[in-house]
Amino acid sequence: MVREMARRAKAAQPGLGTAPAERRNEALERIALALEERSAAILAANAADMAAASPNLPGPMVARLRLDERNLAAFVAGVRAVAALPEVLGEELAAWERPNGLQISRVRVPLGVIGIIYEARPGVTVDAAVLCLKAGNAVLLKGGREAARSNTALGEAIAAGLEAAGFPADLVQVLPPTREATAELMTATGLVDVLIPRGGAGLIRAVLEQSRVPVIETGTGVCHLYVHAAADLAMARAIAVNAKCSNPAVCNALETLLVDRAVAAAFLPAAGAALRQAGVVVRGCEETRKHLPWAEAATEADWRTEYNDLILAVRVVDGLQEALAHIGTYGTRHSESIITADEEAAARFLHQVDAAAVYHNASTRFTDGGEFGFGAEIGISTQKLHARGPMGLAELTSYKYIILGAGQIR
Amino acid sequence: MVREMARRAKAAQPGLGTAPAERRNEALERIALALEERSAAILAANAADMAAASPNLPGPMVARLRLDERNLAAFVAGVRAVAALPEVLGEELAAWERPNGLQISRVRVPLGVIGIIYEARPGVTVDAAVLCLKAGNAVLLKGGREAARSNTALGEAIAAGLEAAGFPADLVQVLPPTREATAELMTATGLVDVLIPRGGAGLIRAVLEQSRVPVIETGTGVCHLYVHAAADLAMARAIAVNAKCSNPAVCNALETLLVDRAVAAAFLPAAGAALRQAGVVVRGCEETRKHLPWAEAATEADWRTEYNDLILAVRVVDGLQEALAHIGTYGTRHSESIITADEEAAARFLHQVDAAAVYHNASTRFTDGGEFGFGAEIGISTQKLHARGPMGLAELTSYKYIILGAGQIR
Repeated sequence: MVREMARRAKAAQPGLGTAPAERRNEALERIALALEERSAAILAANAADMAAASPNLPGPMVARLRLDERNLAAFVAGVRAVAALPEVLGEELAAWERPNGLQISRVRVPLGVIGIIYEARPGVTVDAAVLCLKAGNAVLLKGGREAARSNTALGEAIAAGLEAAGFPADLVQVLPPTREATAELMTATGLVDVLIPRGGAGLIRAVLEQSRVPVIETGTGVCHLYVHAAADLAMARAIAVNAKCSNPAVCNALETLLVDRAVAAAFLPAAGAALRQAGVVVRGCEETRKHLPWAEAATEADWRTEYNDLILAVRVVDGLQEALAHIGTYGTRHSESIITADEEAAARFLHQVDAAAVYHNASTRFTDGGEFGFGAEIGISTQKLHARGPMGLAELTSYKYIILGAGQIR
Repeated sequence: MVREMARRAKAAQPGLGTAPAERRNEALERIALALEERSAAILAANAADMAAASPNLPGPMVARLRLDERNLAAFVAGVRAVAALPEVLGEELAAWERPNGLQISRVRVPLGVIGIIYEARPGVTVDAAVLCLKAGNAVLLKGGREAARSNTALGEAIAAGLEAAGFPADLVQVLPPTREATAELMTATGLVDVLIPRGGAGLIRAVLEQSRVPVIETGTGVCHLYVHAAADLAMARAIAVNAKCSNPAVCNALETLLVDRAVAAAFLPAAGAALRQAGVVVRGCEETRKHLPWAEAATEADWRTEYNDLILAVRVVDGLQEALAHIGTYGTRHSESIITADEEAAARFLHQVDAAAVYHNASTRFTDGGEFGFGAEIGISTQKLHARGPMGLAELTSYKYIILGAGQIR
């Protein structure tokens, strides 16, 4: 069944991918209108999802599942914001002439059919659909079972919007919320160009392990902040608190603080107090606990853990080299930051740390499509193939070569 | 065992990836010298491979396995040519400032550890190794069993060159030529960043189906030439013969000729005769055989076949739309060409055909890193993720974001 849906998506995609920008933007506007028109039905479907939800569903999951008028208005505004983003398709990425007279250009085109596998977050349904559509792609949406009714209602609104703009509804299809659907999607090679899993580490690992379709790995972030010997300690403290506390549930939040031994005594007591006051549980190395006797003892496992919570691992290191070695061993290549006034140390850190985003004197929390100025994002890639870091519209495209000749043979 | 080799490659790679261009180029020069110095040992190893080869080995495979002084000189020249290519690492791909003052730049970095799986072609061992090294990557080479002694000898020369330049030999490792090694390589997630299979359709399909590590699909090309109603027929004939015959074994060779009904009678007799004279067996549709009574009858399977041989499928189509539909159904998204003097028809073809390379009035045989001016290529991608078409040095890289702040928090 999913294979058949994928086949229809693949058949429908070229019509969207070769349509002019105005027609794709018109489709997004029609989707925004359809979401507005159908808001009562969408909220009713969501209420039914909420009513059917297990009382054992964890609090954060319930919060992500629930929709209200304000959420819907934000979805609609989001759709219009994506429509207003600059066009990416057709962009000439490079052009040159060969000695034999062939004119070669490299032009941006859609990826094709994109599969999104996610959990019970109805917002992703709208978000992912419109980003994929704007970049000329068809999309297959496999959301969580708990949000099934909400996703179906949102999918119907998107379908109505597409059809009102003269496009086939097959361009955006909500898959059944079953394991079988996921399994079929992961084996739809030749029909689906890429899968993007969005969600917890377990979901992403499962997709990576099982998919036969190319996957873009997203998400896991064991992010570090290294307070160098030459750091502005007030800046370092403010950034540590911000990076840990401003949204601990997300992948760009700080998980491990590395403190140079040279400034440990000057930095840790005040920084520790500020973190503690913000509700952070500190798990420190032995050296850290000399300065923060109230801190819990960190174990090897702490250096590898993405807490996604108000918990912070803290380790005192002997200089830049040891900080680099720690990040090389325990980092997940997501976001890493150094706080220092020493330009040479900063340059070494930025050059040598292998991560999607490396920072000097700033919070890791900026690794985000919106914060980077992409207007929107479909996720944050932690792999190196195709896309790295925040993925916006450009990362949902490929390219082709157009070669103009005058009868050249080889 | 392969996992342990991959671990060593991963540990060695950052030292290469962060080394200045001169040091990497010096390593390539040392490899060139080591290949020259060890030429007798390499040729002796190759002679042993040839002696051990099964008498049932097909002719073309024997030809690819055999090395002589001339081949080795070509390898050495190839290494020096790669060393002379422009540096790609560190290139600033984009840079901008955010309203909050963050300075963001996107900088080219190596992919990391690359695995190459290929057949009994010792040339690939040198070729792939130096391209990967130039772009700052470590490489694991899994060649065919028939070339095992040649590959070991070549690998020893490469290792000697690396060490002479002060780099660890772990950067280029020749894996055992066993199925177990391939299987281990395909499950080395977290250690190997990408696998590139090079070889026949069977090899590529097996890697795509079995690998847990991201794969770049290369190779299969059912390439079409569409002779439009407004084609220069002499040009079309010359290109058809060239695209089919100049090297029928390669993926950018022509496999299916589509002839517009409007010019079938004017084009087919002379073009058919030219192809026949060049030794080409034609398998035509019913309409084609009215003009070429000597042609064999094509079946549905012919439209899907990459012959890699002097065989050509020929079909008469009713106009551009039918040509596009045929290519959409049977093409492998590799290289497609239209011959026409009608600019509007050409524009429609170039825009609507979904392939790595789309041509107007030129032979499909130009889809090649060298012909595109990349200096060298590691293969031709037929997927859309990461890289499409000929892959040169740039396609062996990723990027990272460098963000400079002054204490920004979010």
